[in-house]
Amino acid sequence: MEENRWPRFAVVGAGAVGCYFGGMLARAGAPVTLIGHAPHVEAIARQGLFFDGLHFQQHIPVSASTQVSAIADAEIVLFCVKTVNTEETAKSLLPHLAPGAALISLQNGVDNVERIRSVAGIDAFAAAVYVAAAMTAPGRVKHSGRGDLILGDLPGRAREDGERQRQLERVASLFHHAGVPCRVSDNVEGELWMKLILNCAYNAVSALGRAQYRRAAGNQWARAVMVKVIEEALGVARGTGVRLPEVNMVESVLEISESMANATSSTAQDLARGKPTEIDSLNGYLVRRGAEVGVATPVNQTLHALVKLLEESV
Amino acid sequence: MEENRWPRFAVVGAGAVGCYFGGMLARAGAPVTLIGHAPHVEAIARQGLFFDGLHFQQHIPVSASTQVSAIADAEIVLFCVKTVNTEETAKSLLPHLAPGAALISLQNGVDNVERIRSVAGIDAFAAAVYVAAAMTAPGRVKHSGRGDLILGDLPGRAREDGERQRQLERVASLFHHAGVPCRVSDNVEGELWMKLILNCAYNAVSALGRAQYRRAAGNQWARAVMVKVIEEALGVARGTGVRLPEVNMVESVLEISESMANATSSTAQDLARGKPTEIDSLNGYLVRRGAEVGVATPVNQTLHALVKLLEESV
Repeated sequence: MEENRWPRFAVVGAGAVGCYFGGMLARAGAPVTLIGHAPHVEAIARQGLFFDGLHFQQHIPVSASTQVSAIADAEIVLFCVKTVNTEETAKSLLPHLAPGAALISLQNGVDNVERIRSVAGIDAFAAAVYVAAAMTAPGRVKHSGRGDLILGDLPGRAREDGERQRQLERVASLFHHAGVPCRVSDNVEGELWMKLILNCAYNAVSALGRAQYRRAAGNQWARAVMVKVIEEALGVARGTGVRLPEVNMVESVLEISESMANATSSTAQDLARGKPTEIDSLNGYLVRRGAEVGVATPVNQTLHALVKLLEESV
Repeated sequence: MEENRWPRFAVVGAGAVGCYFGGMLARAGAPVTLIGHAPHVEAIARQGLFFDGLHFQQHIPVSASTQVSAIADAEIVLFCVKTVNTEETAKSLLPHLAPGAALISLQNGVDNVERIRSVAGIDAFAAAVYVAAAMTAPGRVKHSGRGDLILGDLPGRAREDGERQRQLERVASLFHHAGVPCRVSDNVEGELWMKLILNCAYNAVSALGRAQYRRAAGNQWARAVMVKVIEEALGVARGTGVRLPEVNMVESVLEISESMANATSSTAQDLARGKPTEIDSLNGYLVRRGAEVGVATPVNQTLHALVKLLEESV
């Protein structure tokens, strides 16, 4: 793909996920603006994004801004903020979003698209994100596993004229050209749930037990707890009427401990920085949905509570 | 009580519990030998036990030894080692225990007396211990709440001639004279279980959430988890046929968050020192007993697993 055929991208939320995918796009030649907090933006403006990849390390020149108004000329906006900031960010970007621009939520949890629509009236696409990455310093992202996306529209959002489907296919193709495996699913809700279940199994356990993924799943007791997290989640998904991907969920989730062996969960990263975690959108979400549909979730409840307590402590 | 009427005491395991009760006895004039690891013993031999109490701070002169043979002339032996060391220590002290000496287990968990008898044939008494204390440096114990004992014989161990009951009454009286509230219970098994339930509710939660007792119980989510721990434990106790003290267990356990507000659990202390915890005798015990009697314990299982994982990590 020639450089002049790339549309403009903006990434709202220049954390690990935003910098990984924005960085890959910029590296491939796409015009990308990363929007985030001052320390990252300043470092990126000075010397580009330092991308500490599995297969390459390089400074990637890319625009950066602390102002959400910098999305104004973007055709595709990657929405990568923490779930605790979904509403606030969606409202703040609304006045700046170009007509026809595609907003894609690359967030954890399953209800961000609904929350964005609810507060801002924007009909975002959803992406289930698989990447192990962390910001190791201002303007510096370290990649330690995977890096792929599953895109789609939530039930009832596709349009008869096929326009949204064409947008999705185009975005997937752009990511593909940037070296990001990306497919469009007609069941992205199920994919988001699968990612939710993965997060619920690993994030809190690895944060509370201070263990990377392989070691967490390698501990016989922690592994048994992760299996229970998954079983509870499958019960809630059934109770909610979600159609999950047809895989053995326990096996699929535990396999992640190999493909993302040295991952440190975003929950652990947030706690290490004294920031609020996304636990209310992960295990906490399962607990709330479980209560609504009458499915007991004692293991998820325990994990959620311990992270909430730890948030107060750090 | 005059000094010459005190029997000789030995404390096996000069950690926080052993130093608290041994220190109180020595301060009252009893001849006490604290047996423990070299750093504490050396510091105590040099300048006495530094007792950083709620109501007084002082150096208490007391004998100390690293050798378990130092129990040889003791009439009363307080068995205060970690539950992971119960068997090993019981076997090692057997050759040195004076005939007729009383051995009293001041340990967490409910099965130490049985384990001591099983490996060493010693018929120990049991004590349910309530004290918030910690070793803050070699030879230095800090007291932050309570400091009382409930003594007794486990079911089937009392003797017809009343001799063991008289021994218990005497020990209780000695503690009483040393300023340690102490009573004899005819249901010490129930008291040990009550203490177990307390430990199961606080220890892991406060260690994993890095919170002292008041703040742990003050966090709405952690508190709800603690209540579930208690409910699961009550189910296991019922299934096991244990007669618990007739109190509202949830209320009683949560009240501890006030009387021991600033306590740091022994589990947290062990983890901070990179030592094995007693979690297998606490939440882990409830999980094993629960499995035997068919009572589900998912919350206790989760807490146990996370501490096991954290033990590997620190």
